[in-house]
Amino acid sequence: MKNFTCVKDLGDLQVALKEAFEIKKDRYQFCELGKNKTLLMIFFNSSLRTRLSTQKAAMNLGMNTMVLDVNQGAWKLETERGVIMDGDKPEHLLEAVPVMGCYCDIIGVRSFARFENKEEDYNEMILNQFIKYSGRPVFSMEAATRHPLQSFADLITIEEYKKTARPKVVLTWAPHPKALPQAVPNSFAEWMNAADYEFVITHPEGYELDPQFVGNAKVEYDQKKAFKGADFVYAKNWAAYADPNYGQILSLDRSWTVDEDKMALTNNAYFMHCLPVRRNMIVTDDVIESPQSIVIQEAANREISAQAVLKRMLENL
Amino acid sequence: MKNFTCVKDLGDLQVALKEAFEIKKDRYQFCELGKNKTLLMIFFNSSLRTRLSTQKAAMNLGMNTMVLDVNQGAWKLETERGVIMDGDKPEHLLEAVPVMGCYCDIIGVRSFARFENKEEDYNEMILNQFIKYSGRPVFSMEAATRHPLQSFADLITIEEYKKTARPKVVLTWAPHPKALPQAVPNSFAEWMNAADYEFVITHPEGYELDPQFVGNAKVEYDQKKAFKGADFVYAKNWAAYADPNYGQILSLDRSWTVDEDKMALTNNAYFMHCLPVRRNMIVTDDVIESPQSIVIQEAANREISAQAVLKRMLENL
Amino acid sequence: MKNFTCVKDLGDLQVALKEAFEIKKDRYQFCELGKNKTLLMIFFNSSLRTRLSTQKAAMNLGMNTMVLDVNQGAWKLETERGVIMDGDKPEHLLEAVPVMGCYCDIIGVRSFARFENKEEDYNEMILNQFIKYSGRPVFSMEAATRHPLQSFADLITIEEYKKTARPKVVLTWAPHPKALPQAVPNSFAEWMNAADYEFVITHPEGYELDPQFVGNAKVEYDQKKAFKGADFVYAKNWAAYADPNYGQILSLDRSWTVDEDKMALTNNAYFMHCLPVRRNMIVTDDVIESPQSIVIQEAANREISAQAVLKRMLENL
Repeated sequence: MKNFTCVKDLGDLQVALKEAFEIKKDRYQFCELGKNKTLLMIFFNSSLRTRLSTQKAAMNLGMNTMVLDVNQGAWKLETERGVIMDGDKPEHLLEAVPVMGCYCDIIGVRSFARFENKEEDYNEMILNQFIKYSGRPVFSMEAATRHPLQSFADLITIEEYKKTARPKVVLTWAPHPKALPQAVPNSFAEWMNAADYEFVITHPEGYELDPQFVGNAKVEYDQKKAFKGADFVYAKNWAAYADPNYGQILSLDRSWTVDEDKMALTNNAYFMHCLPVRRNMIVTDDVIESPQSIVIQEAANREISAQAVLKRMLENL
Repeated sequence: MKNFTCVKDLGDLQVALKEAFEIKKDRYQFCELGKNKTLLMIFFNSSLRTRLSTQKAAMNLGMNTMVLDVNQGAWKLETERGVIMDGDKPEHLLEAVPVMGCYCDIIGVRSFARFENKEEDYNEMILNQFIKYSGRPVFSMEAATRHPLQSFADLITIEEYKKTARPKVVLTWAPHPKALPQAVPNSFAEWMNAADYEFVITHPEGYELDPQFVGNAKVEYDQKKAFKGADFVYAKNWAAYADPNYGQILSLDRSWTVDEDKMALTNNAYFMHCLPVRRNMIVTDDVIESPQSIVIQEAANREISAQAVLKRMLENL
Repeated sequence: MKNFTCVKDLGDLQVALKEAFEIKKDRYQFCELGKNKTLLMIFFNSSLRTRLSTQKAAMNLGMNTMVLDVNQGAWKLETERGVIMDGDKPEHLLEAVPVMGCYCDIIGVRSFARFENKEEDYNEMILNQFIKYSGRPVFSMEAATRHPLQSFADLITIEEYKKTARPKVVLTWAPHPKALPQAVPNSFAEWMNAADYEFVITHPEGYELDPQFVGNAKVEYDQKKAFKGADFVYAKNWAAYADPNYGQILSLDRSWTVDEDKMALTNNAYFMHCLPVRRNMIVTDDVIESPQSIVIQEAANREISAQAVLKRMLENL
């Protein structure tokens, strides 16, 4: 595996899961693999879980790590040719990106959708520039359209807790006061489709995700219907994808908040969320504090997914 | 030792001091102890000495370190249940804190008194939330009411320089243009009482510290009387503790500045301060530059106190 | 070598180059040298290449690294004696600097010219305070008047690409929208003089550099004449040095931009720049993207120059 930006990069998911569980048994057993290898983590957006879990994963493998925090929007790179650079952009990406590649062996990049230009977001401009110009293997630490380290951790968690071979997994939209990217739901949908679970997406009308991610999922606009018989409920907010509302909040309807009444419709489902989560918007206190809530275990698996990915990338150097 | 927040956690001080001096002889002799162990340092307030000395101590022990700078006040965690989180707090501490615990073995926390609510400050709300919810051993890198790594370094320094078994140690208030927490003087008092030195606290009326920290110390309102025969003078500013003036500046009286005339009253005392220090407010240039000033040696011992604490915590994992 | 602030500190350049090429062959061969040694990197100005390359170099040598970002201008240290410190400066350098030295073995400092006071800039006040008061070996990660790690990397690069024993090297001024320090051109001139190449400096009138750096270089005000027969063209902007224009922009004349027509006058010269570079101000897209452009290779050598310097300093501890 050279780059890691989506589920396809992992190849056979069963093999990848086996490697992940092997790592989880003893996360220090491969600590020689990363010796004299350096991970550069570049954050165009702030991070807590992703930074800590990825850095921890790299250190488990014996890697050196360097973190570069690019102030949100403050580091403006010119991307066009022919521009007379006498304005606020001090550097061209064609110099900046290869130079960063000089000082490391693997690059992780976090760069969210900006909701300014849908095409630019969905073309993953920044991530792809690193892949094209850095000269190094690159992995996503959440990009504009996907968050594959999160989705891989989600998959690991479901495999750990599932009671049937092919559980019913429900991705449900829930309200949130700010407009959030579709990276997590897109990516989760992509991975659930690849894992071949029974997969249902439920959201208010207008919140349809990009069809390339929805894939074979069943889309159900009635949240209660969707929850029936669910083994896992995965809650997440996202802003609208479809034109002309791209990046807009269409609803703050708290009747979509996941509560005990709705969870009672499920097959004693586990509750999941990528965190951070706004309580009593996305989910009630009672549900997230219940024994069926596995949000902390899910977050803990971020270290495992990152380590499995880094291990593959190190082996491929 | 599981957590480290105050002098009691160390147990027998003579044993702890012996361990500290053992470390100081060769600070790399325990570099295998921290192998594959990760320290997460969380700063709710900025830091220079504490961050560098603690990180250095952890690296001396072979630990990996991660630093999380929480912009002052910018990371607002919800702490109540039942709140509809549609405002400026994006995360509840009941998710945030356990997740941070997932990615490390030991957590250091710095969180100052805010002077907004005396009860909240003196209950050590933030530090205690980490102890209660992180699932990891926690130590204070200066909390609202105590700065035990500083006090331990102070104790080590006094033991190195003292010329009698039971020296006279004077903690003196001195003026400062900003309102400062009582963490350092509280903690120093607690440790001096525990060390059973002859201990005197001197300050203008109105600056009385919390009696639980004053303990058996003699409180003397006449600074010159207090200095007589002192072996160590420990200067520090703090804002008022007693109601209704909690967190207020009551005096900027520079007649309390430590100068050569006052030091001449002592038993050729050593001068100490936790740094940073404002010259000619707290202490004159002449005194802090004199051979009796041991502020740099005291700061250097911050690495030793942190390493002794981390060593204990690692041994207890 | 104790400190490293200018070319003289390296001694015989041929020996230093030999060491650098030895490192480049296998940059991990000295990974035991830095064991239990800590590098503290202090940035008074922001950095990308310097921080990453120096940190990487230190890790290649097995060192621990700590980074201290001093917000631009935000950390104000008092430097005078006798001042009553009741204002915005919370600490005196005579405490701050020695304490930083306590927690590390080697200190790297970045501190640019501020263009507020020419004498202060050219006296290298901040860098020299660290040398004088930190108690540790200190190296420059770009100071007010020199950028020796850059110049050493430049020298390494020229040695790698030169086709004759004594190539013709041309340092050319080029326009830039902001006033930039003279550290890079000063330092480059100093190193080129020391390397005894055929060295020409070209710039508009008024942009004369400090004669102590110009040394034996030929100064040519006609850029095209200067370029004739050049083997290396090193472009860089700088603000005026000579009084009364110190720190001022005297020209934005884009006829000084390095383009293909001018490069055609050279002996098929290589194009160099320290980066970041503003395209179509300093150099056209065509030139910087041409096969003769070695700006990325030059940047990559920053790791090598830093490692050669750190290796020397470690050997001298």
